[in-house]
Amino acid sequence: MRKLTQKMTRAWLLTLTVSLFAGFGVSNAQEEATTDPPIAQTPAVPEEVDETKAGYEELIAGQGDTAYAFDFFTTSMLWTVIAAAMVFIMHLGFATLEAGLTQKKNTVNILFKNVWIISVGLLTYALTGFNTHYPGEFNGFFSIGGPIGDLNADGGGTFGYGGVSLAMTGYGDFIFQAMFAATAATIVSGAVAERIKLGFFMIYSTLLVALGYTIAGSWHWGGGFLAQLETPFKDFAGSTVVHGFGGAAALAAVIVLGPRAGKYTSSGVKPILGHSMPLAAIGVFLLFFGWFGFNGGSVLSAAPGPLGLVFTTTALAAAAGCVASIIVSIIVLKKPDLSMALNGLLAGLVSITAGADVVGPWGAVIMGAVGGAIVVFSILFFDKIRMDDPVGAISVHGVCGIWGTIALVFFTTEEAGTFSLMSQLIGVGAVYIFAFVVSLVLCIVGKITFGIRVSDEEEAEGLDIAEHGAPAYAD
Amino acid sequence: MRKLTQKMTRAWLLTLTVSLFAGFGVSNAQEEATTDPPIAQTPAVPEEVDETKAGYEELIAGQGDTAYAFDFFTTSMLWTVIAAAMVFIMHLGFATLEAGLTQKKNTVNILFKNVWIISVGLLTYALTGFNTHYPGEFNGFFSIGGPIGDLNADGGGTFGYGGVSLAMTGYGDFIFQAMFAATAATIVSGAVAERIKLGFFMIYSTLLVALGYTIAGSWHWGGGFLAQLETPFKDFAGSTVVHGFGGAAALAAVIVLGPRAGKYTSSGVKPILGHSMPLAAIGVFLLFFGWFGFNGGSVLSAAPGPLGLVFTTTALAAAAGCVASIIVSIIVLKKPDLSMALNGLLAGLVSITAGADVVGPWGAVIMGAVGGAIVVFSILFFDKIRMDDPVGAISVHGVCGIWGTIALVFFTTEEAGTFSLMSQLIGVGAVYIFAFVVSLVLCIVGKITFGIRVSDEEEAEGLDIAEHGAPAYAD
Amino acid sequence: MRKLTQKMTRAWLLTLTVSLFAGFGVSNAQEEATTDPPIAQTPAVPEEVDETKAGYEELIAGQGDTAYAFDFFTTSMLWTVIAAAMVFIMHLGFATLEAGLTQKKNTVNILFKNVWIISVGLLTYALTGFNTHYPGEFNGFFSIGGPIGDLNADGGGTFGYGGVSLAMTGYGDFIFQAMFAATAATIVSGAVAERIKLGFFMIYSTLLVALGYTIAGSWHWGGGFLAQLETPFKDFAGSTVVHGFGGAAALAAVIVLGPRAGKYTSSGVKPILGHSMPLAAIGVFLLFFGWFGFNGGSVLSAAPGPLGLVFTTTALAAAAGCVASIIVSIIVLKKPDLSMALNGLLAGLVSITAGADVVGPWGAVIMGAVGGAIVVFSILFFDKIRMDDPVGAISVHGVCGIWGTIALVFFTTEEAGTFSLMSQLIGVGAVYIFAFVVSLVLCIVGKITFGIRVSDEEEAEGLDIAEHGAPAYAD
Repeated sequence: MRKLTQKMTRAWLLTLTVSLFAGFGVSNAQEEATTDPPIAQTPAVPEEVDETKAGYEELIAGQGDTAYAFDFFTTSMLWTVIAAAMVFIMHLGFATLEAGLTQKKNTVNILFKNVWIISVGLLTYALTGFNTHYPGEFNGFFSIGGPIGDLNADGGGTFGYGGVSLAMTGYGDFIFQAMFAATAATIVSGAVAERIKLGFFMIYSTLLVALGYTIAGSWHWGGGFLAQLETPFKDFAGSTVVHGFGGAAALAAVIVLGPRAGKYTSSGVKPILGHSMPLAAIGVFLLFFGWFGFNGGSVLSAAPGPLGLVFTTTALAAAAGCVASIIVSIIVLKKPDLSMALNGLLAGLVSITAGADVVGPWGAVIMGAVGGAIVVFSILFFDKIRMDDPVGAISVHGVCGIWGTIALVFFTTEEAGTFSLMSQLIGVGAVYIFAFVVSLVLCIVGKITFGIRVSDEEEAEGLDIAEHGAPAYAD
Repeated sequence: MRKLTQKMTRAWLLTLTVSLFAGFGVSNAQEEATTDPPIAQTPAVPEEVDETKAGYEELIAGQGDTAYAFDFFTTSMLWTVIAAAMVFIMHLGFATLEAGLTQKKNTVNILFKNVWIISVGLLTYALTGFNTHYPGEFNGFFSIGGPIGDLNADGGGTFGYGGVSLAMTGYGDFIFQAMFAATAATIVSGAVAERIKLGFFMIYSTLLVALGYTIAGSWHWGGGFLAQLETPFKDFAGSTVVHGFGGAAALAAVIVLGPRAGKYTSSGVKPILGHSMPLAAIGVFLLFFGWFGFNGGSVLSAAPGPLGLVFTTTALAAAAGCVASIIVSIIVLKKPDLSMALNGLLAGLVSITAGADVVGPWGAVIMGAVGGAIVVFSILFFDKIRMDDPVGAISVHGVCGIWGTIALVFFTTEEAGTFSLMSQLIGVGAVYIFAFVVSLVLCIVGKITFGIRVSDEEEAEGLDIAEHGAPAYAD
Repeated sequence: MRKLTQKMTRAWLLTLTVSLFAGFGVSNAQEEATTDPPIAQTPAVPEEVDETKAGYEELIAGQGDTAYAFDFFTTSMLWTVIAAAMVFIMHLGFATLEAGLTQKKNTVNILFKNVWIISVGLLTYALTGFNTHYPGEFNGFFSIGGPIGDLNADGGGTFGYGGVSLAMTGYGDFIFQAMFAATAATIVSGAVAERIKLGFFMIYSTLLVALGYTIAGSWHWGGGFLAQLETPFKDFAGSTVVHGFGGAAALAAVIVLGPRAGKYTSSGVKPILGHSMPLAAIGVFLLFFGWFGFNGGSVLSAAPGPLGLVFTTTALAAAAGCVASIIVSIIVLKKPDLSMALNGLLAGLVSITAGADVVGPWGAVIMGAVGGAIVVFSILFFDKIRMDDPVGAISVHGVCGIWGTIALVFFTTEEAGTFSLMSQLIGVGAVYIFAFVVSLVLCIVGKITFGIRVSDEEEAEGLDIAEHGAPAYAD
């Protein structure tokens, strides 16, 4: 069995390698100007002021007609790349959260999956994702793009690339969005943990990120049909497009995969405890930290008014989600449950992500608090219907994604304008159904062909030894 | 006993919820303009340059009379929110440090307390903290403010909000300060770990953050009596106002609470080892990282000269504190003690926090080194007088806070001007006594009414099982 | 034996202390203007707009002739200090990676070494490093500088300090470079883990950082002979100067030190498993995060075009290194090995560091992928020749450093210009040989005098108890 997985994995990895090199062939032709304007490196001694002035004028000149706003653009672009780094660290947050909430014997497997996801996510986003996500020519529904070329060429390194409403360079746009791309697969990773076959998950996550997420994203952020509705679908940083997508895909995968052995017995639900709550807490704090980049970076410039608002609504919604889930878990579960508090905090974050720029601080508090309450009941509900989601990903991302996307219609401030409940429902419906179907098809095809679940013996032994031949903890 | 705690907690949480909604009612009326100026979201295709120019001019126009400095303001505001995120991550640092230096059986409890503190800290700072901290109308001593409204309204989203010396928007000001607010309670959390009753700590920390800290802060940063002294009290980023406040409050709590069972025996002090030094080290590194935001953000703009200086003095003081505590611990304890090295590093950071912008690099080295030496003796001293502080918080924050606040008088550079020893002593005296008294009163009231300490059986069993019904580590 | 170590350590620490104070004496005379221009602190109430304007004009005025670019400079300087903080967090990455990949019984020792390295690295960089690294008067080969003074004085706090190609203040330059300085010693730390004597390592790392690294760096970044070659040596952020230096020094240390007991037996290589893969994964993710500051900060300004490119090439090379090492390890080792995936990711990062600003995205993918493949074979090779490197540091930093430095000649884009293979080989040769020899001499002198390796009993017991008297994990 293990040999089969290896064979599959190997065959497929070779395919990936070939595609990468093929992709390189295509894009190579497009590569011309790289750093525009060229910047001299590391002078030991300060240059003369005159030369300095010339250098600055050269920088400005590189901005063509848009030099008037060069400094605003520079600041905004700086924020974009810092935000990208912050979103990157969310992947460590997801990795440690998932590892902490599952069993010791599957830890290497979980870390491996997460290292894989971010790496292959970045590569495939360069290969096909970016140009699928933001197609130049677009029919509104489906369009697979090719590899990126030199994004600094043809004015891509200047303010003219996106202006005041997308104040970044082409590479800034790419790297920020690339960091988002892997998130959908990461969310699924948590829900299918402790029993999915590694080889299948590597293929599944690659396809989900490379094609599924980018197509759904193109409907909204790529100017597709959701952006073309009479009142366009509103999803600021991705409650639906990112988190909802991941949650709906996770649900389909969990349905096909089935629960972990021993979770649902004739005498009821048997909790399988996470092996390290410090890892889980580290994960949630890092996710909270990274979310400032996720939402804050989605302002798409450093415009001070929106930036301060988005940081504030994001923080307050997280805090309210946490406090609400603590209150609800004390009432319902009769104890202050740490994993509920952690999931409540994340629920608050997912709930505000669609509307972080259009609600006020107290709107954010209510949206987050309701999300934090919902998540407790949702987790209990999915256990009741025997959908085994070890980390609560379907509830946190899927269920609260719906809540956040719809709630903004009611909590938006007067100044921010009005949104259409119908458009929001259409957006949620389209993205969730698409994500569910794509994931379902991938899982069913996988199940029929090589199988998607490890054997009972491997599950009992733990995936670390069964799949990787090494434990996570030695002496 | 556990049931009582739950009842208390539940009752009080309902009160909190009610107040939050009440707060919402009040503030709702104030909510008008939210994002000023409105920024269009995520265009797929770059706009025309002309439109872009119009957009930029609209942004500038939103700054009224202050458009001449829009770009400086934008950069400064960006730094403010990034610094806020860095201060946020200090809360993960505190959580892992505290968890690492205590016993395995209390880890869930410690993580829970820390997730609670940051969440409720953010909410109460929005509810009453911000307007208590920076009162509009002020008698110089006490004033409880109401909830925040729309901080972008009435020019709050422009350079006019604070000018060059507070170059941020209203929301920027709020979120940066809100991240500081919970710090005081976090410091206490470490000192009272492993025996305090969860329900009481949840109430205690809320009140300490919502009222105690914000009132003391208003004396200095809110333009209160410490800012009105002939030579105003100088405390750059809060050696006294934040760290000293927390340390003094911790001392009062430890006095009322008493030491952990078995720590002080007839045959001397029995060390209770921390259960994970990697967690402790992660905590200290994250605190060091976050401190760049704590001190650097306190420049309150991105003014390049002060910013570089503050980063440098902060880093050098931390390094000197660490090296000094290593030297002292080798001499005094006859071994290179890791927990002393970690606490020495933090001691260096606390020692520079009051004067990071007014001393030179070598002044910072000496201030940090002395702090690092002090902390070793202080920790030994508190153990000698049987004040049980599992993580050394009273020494690191309380004792070094005094040192840092006073030392700046002697190490300030000529250019930075002179400070008054008397003003510094008045500031330290006022804040420490106030913090001590508030904490003492809260603890005594708590002790008389519901009790503040878990039972001997619960302490022996560990708070994870006793209070939360779940261990931190399973298989 | 242990007593001897303590005596040594103590004697040497006193020397360090004395030097620090001596350094202070020297520099004190130089300390004059500290914050230029002076910024008022924390006003409670917004000032009048007129005052604000005056304040801004004062800030601009402080920039002398260069006020035209004040805002660009402010943004660039902000990026410099944020990048410094990101490079700082790499030291936590190194600490947790090294701890995770080694045995439980040596964890305190590893954390202690890493806290020591960053602290003493910062101090010695202020004492002699900065002015050795960037000498004013320079013969091209060797020059030891004195302590830093007030770096804001004499226009050091203005754009005139470095102009558009080094758009930061003097303190900005210092703190960013200081964070790099300790890296070389950190790399060695991993390779010599689990058997080196603490006292010796403390001295060794101090000297390596204070003198070795800064001298080698001065050849390239200080305007020394490598910068004076006809086609100057190209090493953007330090594949050779930082990582190669560390790797070569590590090799020399491992040769003198010998392998860990029981690693190489008559029946072959016995793997010694790391005690915590979550710690190792946390380390690699933090290193990836920090590398955005390491490479991105090396742009030395916030120039948008180069910044976006560098973030993109850095991320893609890391991803490609990870995926390539996974493919190779599945083929060669017949399993998907997590530690290889982690080292492959780092290998990709080291491989792009020399040329991150002059290659395109697909050039970066190939450079990273080859690095990721190399590292697997290199680790196996060093085990074959019985060079025991517990974390693979020689392969990751030393071997991939060579690859990255040379490969850029072939992958550079047309726009970025051409580089000389000969210059690259001279640079690699000079730095690697110098690092190797310095490290070899230090280790041989150490071995002859006090000994550099713990006793067999201490190694078997673990360094935590033997050297520090405390375990990393208690109950």
